[in-house]
Amino acid sequence: MGTGSSGSAARASRPARPRVELLRVGHRPGRDPRLSTHVALVARAFGAERMYLHPPDATVVASLAGVRERWGGTFEVVPAPSWTSVVHAARGPVVHLTMYGQPLPRLLPRLRRAREILLVVGGAKVPPKIYGEATFNVSVGSQPHSEVAAVAVVLRELLGIPGARPFAGARQRIVPRARGKSVVQVRGSTA
Amino acid sequence: MGTGSSGSAARASRPARPRVELLRVGHRPGRDPRLSTHVALVARAFGAERMYLHPPDATVVASLAGVRERWGGTFEVVPAPSWTSVVHAARGPVVHLTMYGQPLPRLLPRLRRAREILLVVGGAKVPPKIYGEATFNVSVGSQPHSEVAAVAVVLRELLGIPGARPFAGARQRIVPRARGKSVVQVRGSTA
Repeated sequence: MGTGSSGSAARASRPARPRVELLRVGHRPGRDPRLSTHVALVARAFGAERMYLHPPDATVVASLAGVRERWGGTFEVVPAPSWTSVVHAARGPVVHLTMYGQPLPRLLPRLRRAREILLVVGGAKVPPKIYGEATFNVSVGSQPHSEVAAVAVVLRELLGIPGARPFAGARQRIVPRARGKSVVQVRGSTA
Repeated sequence: MGTGSSGSAARASRPARPRVELLRVGHRPGRDPRLSTHVALVARAFGAERMYLHPPDATVVASLAGVRERWGGTFEVVPAPSWTSVVHAARGPVVHLTMYGQPLPRLLPRLRRAREILLVVGGAKVPPKIYGEATFNVSVGSQPHSEVAAVAVVLRELLGIPGARPFAGARQRIVPRARGKSVVQVRGSTA
């Protein structure tokens, strides 16, 4: 057993996965809470750390807080009165997802080397300034589709397909089944 | 140079990608048109053939017809007054996407061997019967998230990340750019 080229050493030296945060811009309170909630749920389920929401909307914050209480983890929606502050505070590449951007596969090697990534997604309305503020404008296909799907696919490429393990502190978890539904309460949960 | 094991021969003998159709069940006209439209747009952009919609909703049909007219391709939303008829007419595995199902990675090898697949996704309301009617109940992670994301990730695994090529008959297409937006009209388009 050498000291650097065995299978397990190769695994150990595999670069760590980036930490990913999300910024949802152009949210329209009253019109978009369901779609922004879907974006946030996907970010959480696929392993992002948190989602900044601009403009702030208490409905989405509360909805994700309820999910965290039942299903665990530390993901939260953070109200962002200024989206530019979030962008300027980013400690890694700012990746704006847009159908007009460069194809994802071309940029993936660079994104995978980053330690921290801020993903930015718009809805129906996107501040045009974001195209200039972003480090990369990235497209998942060059067709109109959905910011929910774009976030899912980028996180899948960066962090993998999410597994079946419950999140830390979950009150309940799913036991995957071929038929029907199985949700069990987690014993000793204090959440 | 042999006759069966070169790189190009290996590529040539790679199984064809499955043809995928989608069935969206439990749609609530008046409440869900935006989310069902997102599901349909993702299905189209990621290479599915069509989406059956139950119950029917002319809003979603019209919205995708408009996208087809501008962006090309043959994808359409087909009203499905009976979802069981669509399931019974399927000529391959019926794959119901649900957070309660078996993990996607475990079933992928079998799905990739199929020639035709019917993906079924519910919304807030899913007829419980579907769990029994499906060939497989499949989860993309065992956390609550979004049917839009689940469809995107399954299609990405089966058909790949969509490229930048315009669809046949498109009137306009995007030229991917590092900054800003570039949409060009396609000459000779008759759509």
